[in-house]
Amino acid sequence: MRIKCTVSYDGSQFYGYQVQPGQRSVQGELEQALQEVHKGEFVRITASGRTDAGVHAMEQVFHFDTALQIPVDKWPVILNQKIGRDVAVLSAERVSEAFHARFDVNTKEYRYIVDRSAIAMPFRRHYTVHYPHRMNIEAMREAAVHLEGEHDFTSFSSAKTEVVDRVRIIDFIKIEELENELIFRVRGNGFLYNMVRIIAGTLLEVGNGKYQPEEIVEMIEAKDRNAAGKTAPAHGLYLWEVNY
Amino acid sequence: MRIKCTVSYDGSQFYGYQVQPGQRSVQGELEQALQEVHKGEFVRITASGRTDAGVHAMEQVFHFDTALQIPVDKWPVILNQKIGRDVAVLSAERVSEAFHARFDVNTKEYRYIVDRSAIAMPFRRHYTVHYPHRMNIEAMREAAVHLEGEHDFTSFSSAKTEVVDRVRIIDFIKIEELENELIFRVRGNGFLYNMVRIIAGTLLEVGNGKYQPEEIVEMIEAKDRNAAGKTAPAHGLYLWEVNY
Repeated sequence: MRIKCTVSYDGSQFYGYQVQPGQRSVQGELEQALQEVHKGEFVRITASGRTDAGVHAMEQVFHFDTALQIPVDKWPVILNQKIGRDVAVLSAERVSEAFHARFDVNTKEYRYIVDRSAIAMPFRRHYTVHYPHRMNIEAMREAAVHLEGEHDFTSFSSAKTEVVDRVRIIDFIKIEELENELIFRVRGNGFLYNMVRIIAGTLLEVGNGKYQPEEIVEMIEAKDRNAAGKTAPAHGLYLWEVNY
Repeated sequence: MRIKCTVSYDGSQFYGYQVQPGQRSVQGELEQALQEVHKGEFVRITASGRTDAGVHAMEQVFHFDTALQIPVDKWPVILNQKIGRDVAVLSAERVSEAFHARFDVNTKEYRYIVDRSAIAMPFRRHYTVHYPHRMNIEAMREAAVHLEGEHDFTSFSSAKTEVVDRVRIIDFIKIEELENELIFRVRGNGFLYNMVRIIAGTLLEVGNGKYQPEEIVEMIEAKDRNAAGKTAPAHGLYLWEVNY
């Protein structure tokens, strides 16, 4: 039977989501736990997508297949006993064999969190990017509107991106202020490698006046990574939710 | 001249506030930075009090004496460049030579934070204590009232406490609920070794029904550490503010 799980993780101590030889990864942590439960038999998990080293997940989704007759609500309890405290399986449900955690994604929301305090807060150092500079938030919101909708996001993806079709739809980019933090919420139907980090980095550079909001239009048209702004650091980024 | 600073720290990676041979401490981190600024001359800092290994500080206060003619608002900037990112000097002001960070304390507020989520949240694992059990919060509040006021807190201090006069005044104990977290706020004129952690641990045991609220009265009267409840873990505790 196929089991779908949601999992939350603090990316600080992981070398990303995907298994890397000799490195601690979220996938590796979960597969090792499943292997123990299956008495040594390897069990592959499939997630909605990868996250890079240092990137967090509030709600990542993965699926796996098992022949074990375990009540579905026991899976989080069993797995959480076997994995590090920086990962937590939040829920599990039985799904049809047709369900696929990656191919069936409808939309995803990422959030990027910036600590605007003059002095970086120690408790937030792994969970936000410190950016104490003055920012024109209205200009950032104007710029964000140009990124919404269907575009070829080549300029907003890593030059290392291998995927050929780089057209994606961004449903919205919201920029919210919460106490000393600025939160970028980006929802879309799919994301290229580094896409949210380049969007956040570029919008911050609109905020500090390096770019004008209208320049976003040219950046998109250029279809060239060099046309857009900086890639913001990984540790401010969260995969926030995955919708099917 | 004497400089008074406020400092915030994430206690997770420290072996407590006070210098310990061969261990990383908050005091050691700050004194090393000051020594660099003073070109190798050792500068002693004096804090409002110690915090144990794993305990955090939202606003700890310390003072030091210096002959350097540095504008007082530059001290946080200079020190923050030389200390770990898990400590941050938030502010500095010049005070009279009569000011003493420990002896002049009027009141302190500590907070103890409990994560009540069914599944421990990865992002809060170093900053809260996970306690998913059912709790009678009204009973805890009734119990807390018995601790307020002036009492001999021998039963609520570590058996290792060396100080002889264990009479302290607790101004208030507030128990607040914020989303999935429970926050104990304890303000008083002084605190014995482990006092807030034993208060939090005992109140949690009132919450789970092990003790009745009225039993707090007998616990205080016993003047015996064994009469009170458990010592709650360090990583849920914050020195929140120090008032002069």
